Amino acid sequence: MTLEVGVLGYRFMGKAHANAMARLPMFFPDAPDIERSVLVGRDEEALSDAADRLGFESIATDWESVVDDVDVFYNLGPNHVHAEPSIAALEAGTPTFCEKPLAPTLEGAEKMAEAAREAGSDVPAGCAFNYRFVPAIQYAKNLLEGGELGEIHHVRGRYLQDWLVDPDAPWSWRNDEELAGSGALGDLGAHTVDLVRFLVGDDDLAGGIEEVSGHLRTFVDKRPVEGSDETRPVTVDDAYSAQLAFENGAMGTLEASRFATGHKNDHTIEIQGSKGSLRFSLERLNELEVLREGDRGYQTVLVTDEDDPYVDHWWPPGHVVGWEHTFVHENYEFLRAVSEGTGFEPSFEDGLAAQRVLAAIEESDDRGEWVSPP
Amino acid sequence: MTLEVGVLGYRFMGKAHANAMARLPMFFPDAPDIERSVLVGRDEEALSDAADRLGFESIATDWESVVDDVDVFYNLGPNHVHAEPSIAALEAGTPTFCEKPLAPTLEGAEKMAEAAREAGSDVPAGCAFNYRFVPAIQYAKNLLEGGELGEIHHVRGRYLQDWLVDPDAPWSWRNDEELAGSGALGDLGAHTVDLVRFLVGDDDLAGGIEEVSGHLRTFVDKRPVEGSDETRPVTVDDAYSAQLAFENGAMGTLEASRFATGHKNDHTIEIQGSKGSLRFSLERLNELEVLREGDRGYQTVLVTDEDDPYVDHWWPPGHVVGWEHTFVHENYEFLRAVSEGTGFEPSFEDGLAAQRVLAAIEESDDRGEWVSPP
Amino acid sequence: MTLEVGVLGYRFMGKAHANAMARLPMFFPDAPDIERSVLVGRDEEALSDAADRLGFESIATDWESVVDDVDVFYNLGPNHVHAEPSIAALEAGTPTFCEKPLAPTLEGAEKMAEAAREAGSDVPAGCAFNYRFVPAIQYAKNLLEGGELGEIHHVRGRYLQDWLVDPDAPWSWRNDEELAGSGALGDLGAHTVDLVRFLVGDDDLAGGIEEVSGHLRTFVDKRPVEGSDETRPVTVDDAYSAQLAFENGAMGTLEASRFATGHKNDHTIEIQGSKGSLRFSLERLNELEVLREGDRGYQTVLVTDEDDPYVDHWWPPGHVVGWEHTFVHENYEFLRAVSEGTGFEPSFEDGLAAQRVLAAIEESDDRGEWVSPP
Amino acid sequence: MTLEVGVLGYRFMGKAHANAMARLPMFFPDAPDIERSVLVGRDEEALSDAADRLGFESIATDWESVVDDVDVFYNLGPNHVHAEPSIAALEAGTPTFCEKPLAPTLEGAEKMAEAAREAGSDVPAGCAFNYRFVPAIQYAKNLLEGGELGEIHHVRGRYLQDWLVDPDAPWSWRNDEELAGSGALGDLGAHTVDLVRFLVGDDDLAGGIEEVSGHLRTFVDKRPVEGSDETRPVTVDDAYSAQLAFENGAMGTLEASRFATGHKNDHTIEIQGSKGSLRFSLERLNELEVLREGDRGYQTVLVTDEDDPYVDHWWPPGHVVGWEHTFVHENYEFLRAVSEGTGFEPSFEDGLAAQRVLAAIEESDDRGEWVSPP
Repeated sequence: MTLEVGVLGYRFMGKAHANAMARLPMFFPDAPDIERSVLVGRDEEALSDAADRLGFESIATDWESVVDDVDVFYNLGPNHVHAEPSIAALEAGTPTFCEKPLAPTLEGAEKMAEAAREAGSDVPAGCAFNYRFVPAIQYAKNLLEGGELGEIHHVRGRYLQDWLVDPDAPWSWRNDEELAGSGALGDLGAHTVDLVRFLVGDDDLAGGIEEVSGHLRTFVDKRPVEGSDETRPVTVDDAYSAQLAFENGAMGTLEASRFATGHKNDHTIEIQGSKGSLRFSLERLNELEVLREGDRGYQTVLVTDEDDPYVDHWWPPGHVVGWEHTFVHENYEFLRAVSEGTGFEPSFEDGLAAQRVLAAIEESDDRGEWVSPP
Repeated sequence: MTLEVGVLGYRFMGKAHANAMARLPMFFPDAPDIERSVLVGRDEEALSDAADRLGFESIATDWESVVDDVDVFYNLGPNHVHAEPSIAALEAGTPTFCEKPLAPTLEGAEKMAEAAREAGSDVPAGCAFNYRFVPAIQYAKNLLEGGELGEIHHVRGRYLQDWLVDPDAPWSWRNDEELAGSGALGDLGAHTVDLVRFLVGDDDLAGGIEEVSGHLRTFVDKRPVEGSDETRPVTVDDAYSAQLAFENGAMGTLEASRFATGHKNDHTIEIQGSKGSLRFSLERLNELEVLREGDRGYQTVLVTDEDDPYVDHWWPPGHVVGWEHTFVHENYEFLRAVSEGTGFEPSFEDGLAAQRVLAAIEESDDRGEWVSPP
Repeated sequence: MTLEVGVLGYRFMGKAHANAMARLPMFFPDAPDIERSVLVGRDEEALSDAADRLGFESIATDWESVVDDVDVFYNLGPNHVHAEPSIAALEAGTPTFCEKPLAPTLEGAEKMAEAAREAGSDVPAGCAFNYRFVPAIQYAKNLLEGGELGEIHHVRGRYLQDWLVDPDAPWSWRNDEELAGSGALGDLGAHTVDLVRFLVGDDDLAGGIEEVSGHLRTFVDKRPVEGSDETRPVTVDDAYSAQLAFENGAMGTLEASRFATGHKNDHTIEIQGSKGSLRFSLERLNELEVLREGDRGYQTVLVTDEDDPYVDHWWPPGHVVGWEHTFVHENYEFLRAVSEGTGFEPSFEDGLAAQRVLAAIEESDDRGEWVSPP
Repeated sequence: MTLEVGVLGYRFMGKAHANAMARLPMFFPDAPDIERSVLVGRDEEALSDAADRLGFESIATDWESVVDDVDVFYNLGPNHVHAEPSIAALEAGTPTFCEKPLAPTLEGAEKMAEAAREAGSDVPAGCAFNYRFVPAIQYAKNLLEGGELGEIHHVRGRYLQDWLVDPDAPWSWRNDEELAGSGALGDLGAHTVDLVRFLVGDDDLAGGIEEVSGHLRTFVDKRPVEGSDETRPVTVDDAYSAQLAFENGAMGTLEASRFATGHKNDHTIEIQGSKGSLRFSLERLNELEVLREGDRGYQTVLVTDEDDPYVDHWWPPGHVVGWEHTFVHENYEFLRAVSEGTGFEPSFEDGLAAQRVLAAIEESDDRGEWVSPP
C-alpha cells in the first residue's frame, strides 16, 4: 500500500520534508511507500512551481478537502495556520505531522492536543521537533537513559542566531505576535525546551519542569516593511532567557536570541550529572562531547560509527551527515508509525508540553516572578 | 622608601600574593620597594613555617597591632574575618587590600566601604578581584571601551567547578553560611559579577545591573566532618543561576556551580553587541575569542603580543602566562596606588557593588521574584 | 533531452553517486535531466537488488555493450577496473566520470588520459575528486586566487583513518597491489594531492610540485581472509608520508594512514602564505579557519552563508551540509559539462597529474632519494 | 651548603633561568639553597643593570675565571659561545647547564659531550630542553611508558612561528650560520627532536631514529641590518621539514618554520599507537589530548590535578601554569642533581643525540637522500 501524503506549506519546511520523503526509498528501504500526492497553498503559481520542484503530483488551494482525502497530512505552514487544518485532519482520522511550535497560543495548542487525543492512539499526531533525530542527540539520550551521567544537576540550552541584529532587517510575520505567537521564544525556544524534555525529562532523571523564571526582550521595536517606506511594530521578543527548576532538584537555564552577533544556528545543550557530563552543538551536529565517570576531560565523540543511531543507513565512519538528515530520520519514524498505526513521539502532547513551558516563561516575564507551567 | 606589608592569611591566597610580591622587582622594576614584613595568623607553628616559606620577616598572632604598624595591610583570611581587621586598618589610615568577596554579609560590606570612604581617597582600599588583571580581559575591556562591539545585547558569565559533586567530600567553612556568607554565589559569583561590571558596566555600554532574578540550590545538605563520624549541615548554595536586566536594555545570565562534573576552574564570559562579540575562558586565559564588525567567525587571539596589556613585562609572543600572573599585575597596580596615594580599582566600592548584586540574587531566590540591587 | 547514465559499481561509490543524481532535480533544477539507466556489475542478484534500491532502470553484467549505448558512463568500480571500461567509453565518444585514483598504475592512468585527449574536448572525462566541491574548499580556493594569502610558503595535507590498526582486520582488495595499486597512498593520498594541486597549483601561487621525497610503511604484512583460516599478504602501504618542493619555492608535507588510532576520516589541509593562512578539516567540513592580513588569530568561518559556493541551493545560514553533498555538487558540474559539451575539471589529466605525484612518492621511497614527478 | 651559581648570558634565557631560581624556595622548598652569584657578559653597563634586575651578587666579563670559581655554571649565551666555556667548566669539575642547541656544529657538540663524559657521572652536564618539564609532557611520558598507547606507529612534531615572514624583519645572529649553526632547524627543531626522543625513544616504544630525510628552505635570502642601509645574507634555513624512520618501524614527520603566518609559538606533538593516541600544543600547555583504548575520541585533559607532575607545588586544580614554569621544574631537577652528585637528563649526551639528528637532516637535504644519524 502506498500512503498518499498531503502537505500544506512549500517554503523552507516544505522543502526540508519533501527532500526527506524523497530520500527514504534509497536509504530506509523498510519505510512505507509513499506518494507526495498534493501540495497545498494559496498562491497557485508559486504552488505549481513548488510542486514541480518538490515532486508533488498535484496542488490544492483549499486544505479542507485535502485533509480528508489523503492518508497523511503534513502541516508545514506558518504558526497561525497550524491549529485549524491540523484539527480538521485529525477529526477526519488522518495522521498529522505538524511543524513546531504547535500553535501561536497555548489555547491553540491545547485544542490541537485535544483533537489528537480524540483521534485515538492509532492516528499518529506528530510535532516535528527534528532535533530529537540527530544521531548525536539519540546517542546522548541513550547515555542518559543508561544512567551514565548519574543524577542530573545542571541543564543548559541556548539557541543563538543573529539575523535581526541589523535594525534595518525587514519586518516579517515572525515579528508579529498575531501570526507567530512569540519571537525567539517560540521559534527557537520550542526546540530547546523539547530537547531538554526529551533528554532529561524522565522521572528517573531530572523529571518535569516544575517552575520557570522568564525574561523577554525586544531590542528593536519597529522594522521597515520591504519595498515600502512604512515600518511595522515588532510585537514579539527578540531574545529570551529562563531559569528552570526541575522536579528532582536539578536546575536549568535557557536562552535564545536573534541578536547574537556571529552565531548563525548555534543550538547548544549542556548537561551535568553526578557521574558525567555532555555537550552538544548543532553547528557541529556529528559530534558529542562526553565525559564519563573516571574521565578527566570531555571526549569528542564523532557519532558516525556503524552502530550509532541511524548511521548504518548512510555512510562509513567519519563521513558526516548534515542538518537535513534529521528530517529523513523523523519522517522515517513518523511514516512507520502511520503505517503501523502506532504512537509517535514527539507527539502533539509533547508539542503542548513544550508550549506550556513557553507560556509559563512568558507569563513569568509579565509578572516578574516564578511561574509553574499550567 | 620601602613599604612594609602586613598580611593576614597564609594559605592559598597568602601564597598567591606573597609570590606576586616576590616577583615584582624582576618583572616590574618600577613597582615600589616593599618588604614582606609580618605574617598574621593564629596557629604559631604553622604561621612560622609559612613565614619562612613565603619570605616574611616576622609573624604576629594579633592583627590589631599589625594594622597600625605596617604601611600596607593585606586581608587574605576567610570571609568572616574580612570586615573587622580591614576596617581597623583603614581607620588607622593604612592602605588595605582585601580578598573577595568583601564580606559574608551585605552589612559587613557596607561598613567596609564606609570605612574606605572615611579613610579618604589617598588611602587605597582594594578588593582583590584578580581576574580584571588577565591580559586577555584587559584587551577585551579596551575593545569594549573603544566601541568595537557596539551596543551590548547579551552578557553571559559562568563559573563551573566540581569539587563538591562527591556527596562524601568533607565539610569545610566554605559550606557554612556564618563563615562564608554564601556558597558558589559568593565565592565564584563575586568574580563573575565583578567582571561583568568591569567589562560592560560603563554608562555607554550596558550600564548598571537594574534588576536580577536569582536561583540557588543546595544539592547535598549535609557533609561528613573530616576525621570524625559526624556530619554538619551545608547552609549555603552549591550552585546558583541568575538573570540580569541592565539599565541600557541588555540582558544577562549568570551561573556558578561546585557540582559541574568535569569542570575545574572554568570561568567563562561571553558578550554580544550590535557590532561584535567576544568569549573568554579562564582555563585558556591567554586567549580571547573576538568577532569584529565584518568578521564571519570568532578569531582566536593569543593575547601575548608585546603591546598587549602587561605582556612586555614577561616573555616574547606565544610564551603563555599562568593564573598566578594576574596576582602580580594586581599587586603591581595596588602597590603603585599606595605609593602614589591615588585610588585603586577594583576598590571596596566595587566590592560592595558586587555584593549588592549577590545579595539581590539571594533575595530574589527567597522571594521568587525580580529584585533591584539596593 | 534526457541523458541516459550507465554506472559500473554499486557499492559505496555507487550509492554516493546515485544519491547525488537523485537529488539534482529538487536542488539544482538547472541540471540536465538524467535517467539512471543501467547499473553494471558481475553478481546479478546483488546487482538487481542494488538497481532497485538505487533507482536504476536496468542492469547489465557486461560493460562493453553499455559504454557505447549510454549518454554518460560512470566508472565507480574498484581501481583495477578503471582503465579498460573508461577507455572503451571514451573511444565510443561517451563522456566518462571515473572514481579516483584514476588507475592502479601510472601506465594505466596515462592510457586513460590519452584516451580522454583523443576523445576531444567536447567529451568530458572527469576524475571524481569530490573534495574539490566542498563549499569551504571552494571558498578557500577563492581566497587563494584572490591573493589573500599572498606568496605561499607552507602546505600540509593529512588524511588519517584507523580501520586497519587492528592486525586482525580482514584482508580486502584494498590491501593488494594488483587490485588497488597502492594502499593509503593511492586511496587517501590521491585526494590530498588533488586538493593541493587544486588550491595552490596555479602558477601565481605555489606552482607545480617539482620534487618529492616519499616514505611508505606497511605495519602489518599479512591479514586473515574473512571466513577462512588463511591469511593473505598485504602488498601495499598502510601509511605514507612525503615532502614536497614546489616550483615557486614553497615546501609541503603530506601524510596518510589507516593506522591513526582515533581518526575516522580526518582529512586536513593547512596553507600558510606571506599574508595569511588557512586550515580545513573534512570532519568539520562546513567550517574553514582563515587568518587574513592584519588578523591576530584564525577566524572560524561557517561556510553556510547564502553567497558561499553552492549554499544557496540548500538551506539557510547555519544549517550544515554533509559529506554526501560534495557528490551532488560534482555531479551537477559534470553533467552540465556533458550537456554543454564543455570541459570538466578535475579531468583525467588532473587524475593523471595526481598519479604522477603518487608514483614519484613511491619511487622516491624505493630509491631513498628525491624524485621529480615524470 | 649554598651553591654559588655563575650564569653566562642575561637576555631572554638569562631572565628565564634567573626567575626560575628565584622561585624555588617558595615552591620547591627541598631544592638546594643557591646564590645567584655572578652574571657573565661583555657589555659591563648592560650586565650591571641585568645583574641588579635578575638578582645577581656580582658581574664578570671574563668567563674563564668564573667557570672555576662557582659551584654551578649556566651557559645561556648565543649558540656559538656554548662550547668553549662549557668545556672549560666541565674540565674544572663544575656542573654545567647549557641552553639548546648544544652547539652550532656537530663537532662542537661532540667535544662538549666528550668533556661531560670525562668530567664523570657525578658532575651533571645538562642540556636545557625545558619542554620535557611541562606537566602535560611528563603526563604523556607516563602514559607512553605505561604502554597505554601500545606499539607506536606515527609521530609528528611541528614548531611554527612567524616572526620572519616580513622580508624587512631585521637581520640578527639567528640568521647567520657561523653564529647560530642553523635556523629554524637548530633553534626550534632541536626542541622537537628532543621531545620525540624523550617521549618515544625508549627501546620498547619507537626506539631510536634510524634514518631521516630532510628538507630545508630559505625564503628570504638577505635582510636589512637595523639602523643602517646595509643588508646581510641569511645563511640559515627559514624552515625545515623531515621524515623519520624509527628502529621499531614507526614513521615520523617533523617541521618548523619562522614563516608560519599567524603562529607565534606553536609547538605541537602528536603520537599514534596501536592502542591510543595523544596530542599536545605548547600554546595550550596545561592540556593534553588523550585517546585511550576503548575511547571514541580524544579527551581534553587539563593536567592541573594535584597528582599530576609538579602540580602539587603550585596551585589547586584548574589554576593553570605558564611557559616559565617549565624552567622552574628543570632548574629544580638540575640543581638537585648537582647537590646530590647524580646524573641529570636531558644531558649533554641527549643534546648531542638531538644534534646528530639535526645534522643528518641537514646532510640529507644537501645530498637529496635518506641519511642515518652518525
